[in-house]
Amino acid sequence: MASKTTAASADKARRSLSRRRLLGEGGALLGSAVMGSIGGQALAEQPAPGSENLPPNIPDWMKAPGADMGSQPYGTPSPFEKNVVKNIQANLPQYISASGRTPIGDLDGIITPNGLFYERHHGGVPAIDPEQHRLMLHGLVERPTIFTMEDIRRFPSQSRIHFLECSGNPVYTKPYGKTASDLVGLLSCAEWTGVSLKLVLEEAGLRPEAKWLVAEGADAAALTRSIPIEKCLDDAMLVYSQNGERLRPQQGYPLRLLLPGFEGNMNVKWLRRLKAVTEPAYSREETSKYTDLMPDGTAREFTFYMEAKSIITRPSGGQQLRQKGFHEITGIAWTGHGKIKRVDISVDDGKSWQEAELQEPVLTRALTRFRLPWHWDGEPAVIQSRAIDETGYVQPTFAELTSVRGVNSYYHNNAIQPWRIDAQGQVTNANA
Amino acid sequence: MASKTTAASADKARRSLSRRRLLGEGGALLGSAVMGSIGGQALAEQPAPGSENLPPNIPDWMKAPGADMGSQPYGTPSPFEKNVVKNIQANLPQYISASGRTPIGDLDGIITPNGLFYERHHGGVPAIDPEQHRLMLHGLVERPTIFTMEDIRRFPSQSRIHFLECSGNPVYTKPYGKTASDLVGLLSCAEWTGVSLKLVLEEAGLRPEAKWLVAEGADAAALTRSIPIEKCLDDAMLVYSQNGERLRPQQGYPLRLLLPGFEGNMNVKWLRRLKAVTEPAYSREETSKYTDLMPDGTAREFTFYMEAKSIITRPSGGQQLRQKGFHEITGIAWTGHGKIKRVDISVDDGKSWQEAELQEPVLTRALTRFRLPWHWDGEPAVIQSRAIDETGYVQPTFAELTSVRGVNSYYHNNAIQPWRIDAQGQVTNANA
Repeated sequence: MASKTTAASADKARRSLSRRRLLGEGGALLGSAVMGSIGGQALAEQPAPGSENLPPNIPDWMKAPGADMGSQPYGTPSPFEKNVVKNIQANLPQYISASGRTPIGDLDGIITPNGLFYERHHGGVPAIDPEQHRLMLHGLVERPTIFTMEDIRRFPSQSRIHFLECSGNPVYTKPYGKTASDLVGLLSCAEWTGVSLKLVLEEAGLRPEAKWLVAEGADAAALTRSIPIEKCLDDAMLVYSQNGERLRPQQGYPLRLLLPGFEGNMNVKWLRRLKAVTEPAYSREETSKYTDLMPDGTAREFTFYMEAKSIITRPSGGQQLRQKGFHEITGIAWTGHGKIKRVDISVDDGKSWQEAELQEPVLTRALTRFRLPWHWDGEPAVIQSRAIDETGYVQPTFAELTSVRGVNSYYHNNAIQPWRIDAQGQVTNANA
Repeated sequence: MASKTTAASADKARRSLSRRRLLGEGGALLGSAVMGSIGGQALAEQPAPGSENLPPNIPDWMKAPGADMGSQPYGTPSPFEKNVVKNIQANLPQYISASGRTPIGDLDGIITPNGLFYERHHGGVPAIDPEQHRLMLHGLVERPTIFTMEDIRRFPSQSRIHFLECSGNPVYTKPYGKTASDLVGLLSCAEWTGVSLKLVLEEAGLRPEAKWLVAEGADAAALTRSIPIEKCLDDAMLVYSQNGERLRPQQGYPLRLLLPGFEGNMNVKWLRRLKAVTEPAYSREETSKYTDLMPDGTAREFTFYMEAKSIITRPSGGQQLRQKGFHEITGIAWTGHGKIKRVDISVDDGKSWQEAELQEPVLTRALTRFRLPWHWDGEPAVIQSRAIDETGYVQPTFAELTSVRGVNSYYHNNAIQPWRIDAQGQVTNANA
């Protein structure tokens, strides 16, 4: 990266922001009342004595009792949020190549609610009875075993917050899509609970010659992937819960493999079989799919870890800045290789970069929320973020990525995503 | 606390556990196959050559494509989890004293999914149009202001994970209830996103003589509480999102006050008004309700912070241990005063205590998941947990609590909750 990064620039921006009082900026002082560009409308005058406890408008919903609870033993969002749903791509054969993206441009923080967690499956979503479900562990183990869900639940448990990302997020073809969700919505983050795979393998007596586990899902695609044994003996989990409750059917109910930082499809859902072997299976999903055709004609395969990446979610494509003045720039960053170390933001089309603030705690292989205060002067601008992870890896531009990978790759696009803001404040994909 | 705590006992229990191999315990070795008390059924024999890739049973759900996604743009749990819902107390007047408890005995980790977040309201759930909603900030401020939701959203944001707990969780009358949810289900935890209240007050020019903020909700009860200004200038937030998405209606959509660690009802939902004043309002919710009648006839009032507390959620009331041998004991601990420092567990009716493992990261004013490996010998037992927070405060027994508070108190019961396990493995409330 040739561009300059000012490490102290976020602090500077915040100091500048605090000098320029938010409520007052761009507004006119009217006595003690303020009409600001951010802070709301001033009260026209102080309420008259005796009426000062009366708020300005008594809304209808205060005039009669509200809804009771009996009708919602399991709650749902407000009807006013009915458009915040998964972004389901039209014209894809549902049973073969279905995907539903998380509306990341509408979300805050790092936790994705279960109802909006992204989904991607290859044979539809099976309706599995957990009483009937079994996990078979066999191959190079001393004690081949079939587990019920109750067996799995009796093992010592652990919970960790991790992201999951599809390796085609987005695919390489000239980045299409209008919104952050169109581009990078095959990405979500949750608190997962389950069992250490290492513990289960040790209990079953994993043989030293085992170098891979072949994992198979109980869907109609019998999705199959080969997992290097090192990962299985590191932080891999057999997961049954997500954000406190049991997995949703779309996430592998009642049991999935979780390989923190590995590409999404390796985290096999509806997990029914683990076979310890000496060689990978070279299954469909690791040969004809999820490999990258390089300029020299070879295939880049078994690329397990998702590389460092970030995207600005607000402001992002499809949104609008309705007035100049203060706007927070915020987004999410992540890396399969551990923790995010730094996120830089440029508001001048990549000429200069400022360091964003990272939301604490920064967790390993989890989404990391970043924020930067920004004063928009009303002129057209291109904004973008780049992530740096704890290994020192820097998220590349799309041009940098294609200079290495060529133009025949399809998966594993972690390029910087720039957004264009026009003079009317409309935000669009600067690559489209 | 007179009982002995062995700080190193969790390590000891874990070492003992690892010596006693999980898969083998209580089971009979059959060649290389194991029928264990925890680890599942052994394969009767190795699969015959050529059939070794065939799992033992091909379930029906692998034989045809599963469900597509179009029908679930906002996902819901598996139909097999239909009984994991909020625990809504019968025979309470819905509009006056409604509550729905989180099924904490069925949940894992520390995040509560939004659909199961506990609810408690005094005038039903208003259906608020966010475009019409306003927050008025007035009283002892230089610039009284009315904010739209868009104004609020433009302020710099922050996200933090915090618990919320009702002060009547459970009420003091001899602890009733069969399950963990019956007793302590008015408790949940989420990642909240919103605006620092301190920032908004500074922008509005809070006057130095302001000592309290009176907060009012836009429900039919116009629920009103007085908040000490020190809390408003510390970690208080104006919250619009919960676990990534906008607040649910039951949680105050579109805006609530969040006062981390303060009793639930002070975290005013559907927030419409904040008035800076010199004295508290002495509203209904801080006089006739949410105060504790002490033995000397005085009322204990304005008890803001919830004290340290914990509960074992598995095994807990209504559950059953189906066989002796290994069982993990797990539960949740929390304190309004900061971080949980330690959780002790007794499996011998309080005679001795072992230190549990705390799930990392331990966060301030958030639920903390604890775990302890345990070998149940099949004999009747009483198990219980006690939390110690970073101030050194130790969760009391019910007897210790009533010795101070007397028998006329109703709220703020943070006593230790013991569970009785009988010889059949049935778990019941040892206080009932």
